[in-house]
Amino acid sequence: METNEFRIEGRNAVLEALRSGKTIDKLYVLDGCQDGPVLTIKREAGKRDVIIKYVDKVRLDQMSETGHHQGVIAIGAAIAYAEVSDILEEAAKKGEDPFILLLDHVEDPHNLGAIIRTANLAGAHGVIIPKDRAVGLTAAVMRASAGALNYTKVARVSNLSRTMEELKEKGIWFACADMQGEVMYDLNLTGPIGLVIGNEGSGVSRLVRENCDYVAKIPMHGDIDSLNASVAAGVLAYEIVRQRMIKK
Amino acid sequence: METNEFRIEGRNAVLEALRSGKTIDKLYVLDGCQDGPVLTIKREAGKRDVIIKYVDKVRLDQMSETGHHQGVIAIGAAIAYAEVSDILEEAAKKGEDPFILLLDHVEDPHNLGAIIRTANLAGAHGVIIPKDRAVGLTAAVMRASAGALNYTKVARVSNLSRTMEELKEKGIWFACADMQGEVMYDLNLTGPIGLVIGNEGSGVSRLVRENCDYVAKIPMHGDIDSLNASVAAGVLAYEIVRQRMIKK
Repeated sequence: METNEFRIEGRNAVLEALRSGKTIDKLYVLDGCQDGPVLTIKREAGKRDVIIKYVDKVRLDQMSETGHHQGVIAIGAAIAYAEVSDILEEAAKKGEDPFILLLDHVEDPHNLGAIIRTANLAGAHGVIIPKDRAVGLTAAVMRASAGALNYTKVARVSNLSRTMEELKEKGIWFACADMQGEVMYDLNLTGPIGLVIGNEGSGVSRLVRENCDYVAKIPMHGDIDSLNASVAAGVLAYEIVRQRMIKK
Repeated sequence: METNEFRIEGRNAVLEALRSGKTIDKLYVLDGCQDGPVLTIKREAGKRDVIIKYVDKVRLDQMSETGHHQGVIAIGAAIAYAEVSDILEEAAKKGEDPFILLLDHVEDPHNLGAIIRTANLAGAHGVIIPKDRAVGLTAAVMRASAGALNYTKVARVSNLSRTMEELKEKGIWFACADMQGEVMYDLNLTGPIGLVIGNEGSGVSRLVRENCDYVAKIPMHGDIDSLNASVAAGVLAYEIVRQRMIKK
């Protein structure tokens, strides 16, 4: 996981990286430095839950590749996205019906990481996430995925509904989870399938839902509204695993 | 959720509460105060991920119940634990076979919260956690449980193995998750059952495992070792839900 690291040095570069939403993992700051620009960087880093480590000048000089760190060095994980076609090829290569998880604006990096972990172990061929209003492949996601991100392909698309339409033409059926649906045990989820997981707060968006062939209901016996998004993804993904195992 | 708040005022009391592991949710600190004891409190709070809010003296005075806040007021959630017998009574009251989740030293508050949430929705009658080396019912757990903690009983016991032995005498069977077990779909999990979820890193401990009647394997098709603990709990809990629904 350390191999794909990138390093940004210097005040402007680091501040720019933070503000542009680049995924910074750790920020090394010169201990005791109270300059205005460095305080600004620390504030921006704080907003984004970046871990700040205070180190002395000798250490920073050692770490620096450019020799011009100006008291700040940011380190992040560079994780490459796959294409949707790579995910389909993965399924074809294994001689299996495609099994894809689509995340409709999952925002929590722990959830995204746990879902990628689940996708890996449930034998899904990849995960598709949207570019906007969703968490990307940050270092926190990498950690929460327990390394699954090194194996499971994640593609990022501009428009989830359009991607679903394109995948439908390739014979993939879509199921999303919703309380108003049919109990998941009664659905046939054994073919080429895309499982859609909704946003933590608002669930699956209307357009995406209208594109789904099945609306699957996880039976609920309790007092609250919904499972954690990554738990719901796990329960549904494993219902697909179970049905596929029986079918064989 | 706000009703069960407790409030601690004054430097020694707050520091003591932090150090004893009491679950502090928010810490209000007099803005600009740089006194040694207050810095110590802020450092201890930082170690425990306590949210620090800086407020002026007027606000602190208004919040204070004792009038002696000394610049610090801590607020936490007081959540009451249930007894194991309460959980069994809950099952009896509903006329259902007991269905209990036992957590063998789950450490992550997000996982504990998500598992309590799952327990609620899967219709489990309660959750049992050990006193030592495990996360307790902190405010973070409350948040992650999405309110399920207000409904689902959580009991805390000194010795998980001993509690399992006592519950066995009452006819409860135990299943834990492990890669070396039998595929969960092939097990009969329909009777009075305790589902044991292991620690995030080390899984189910030897003694607890030896006390289990079933070792259930979640099928794994991927490259990594294990699912996230709360996802594994969800997948197993819902296999129990499925089997119970078919049995009816």
